[in-house]
Amino acid sequence: MKKIEHIGIAVKSLKASVPLFEKLLNSRCYKTESVENEQVKTAFFQTGETKIELLESIQKDGIIAKFVEKKGEGMHHIAFAVENIQNEMERLVQDGFTLLNEKPSKGADNKLVCFLHPKTTNGILIELCQEIASSE
Amino acid sequence: MKKIEHIGIAVKSLKASVPLFEKLLNSRCYKTESVENEQVKTAFFQTGETKIELLESIQKDGIIAKFVEKKGEGMHHIAFAVENIQNEMERLVQDGFTLLNEKPSKGADNKLVCFLHPKTTNGILIELCQEIASSE
Repeated sequence: MKKIEHIGIAVKSLKASVPLFEKLLNSRCYKTESVENEQVKTAFFQTGETKIELLESIQKDGIIAKFVEKKGEGMHHIAFAVENIQNEMERLVQDGFTLLNEKPSKGADNKLVCFLHPKTTNGILIELCQEIASSE
Repeated sequence: MKKIEHIGIAVKSLKASVPLFEKLLNSRCYKTESVENEQVKTAFFQTGETKIELLESIQKDGIIAKFVEKKGEGMHHIAFAVENIQNEMERLVQDGFTLLNEKPSKGADNKLVCFLHPKTTNGILIELCQEIASSE
């Protein structure tokens, strides 16, 4: 794991939360992006080498909508940048962790991503992400 | 906010969770420390410029024990490094955030710390921390 790439935060509404985080972090949201296969709209902030990613569901029964309904708004996942996602997935499975997707999928912000099951990681949803090379 | 200084993770037992995070992060825990006024034992990992801080309660009715009882193990707070904690506290109060302590207190890892009320920060417990200069 090279660094914490981002922290994912579930919110009800980007419209309400983007100005809130701009005040909190004292910096501007630099990008918004929809990720259709994860049913979310995202908004990004930079703080040091790590991003804060706000997540709003674009479907009433989407994963983030269900999370907010059950647990309220708040921290949703921690994403670690990795050099080679396939190697890291294999290492983690050998070390007893359970993956939520067997193959890396396309996530927000031009990344290949894979999630680990929170039951094997002290209740924390962990994401691995590898930057997709611009030539791909 | 300069960077994410650490992410605080509530666990039941450092004895169980330290080896788990050593496998997950593929790096060794480099320090453990007890913080009496917060009723916790802590264990630290470095990943890039950010630390992962595991927190185990040393009291049955401590804040972390209650958190784990109510919500289970998992992410507890995000700590941001700040240059001048007093100035940042004043700025945030002016911007409508609520502080949990009026004056900075002594936290783990040689820091002055202050927490923001989660009700004003989208449900997230936010910590500000400023390194204590070695001459103090």
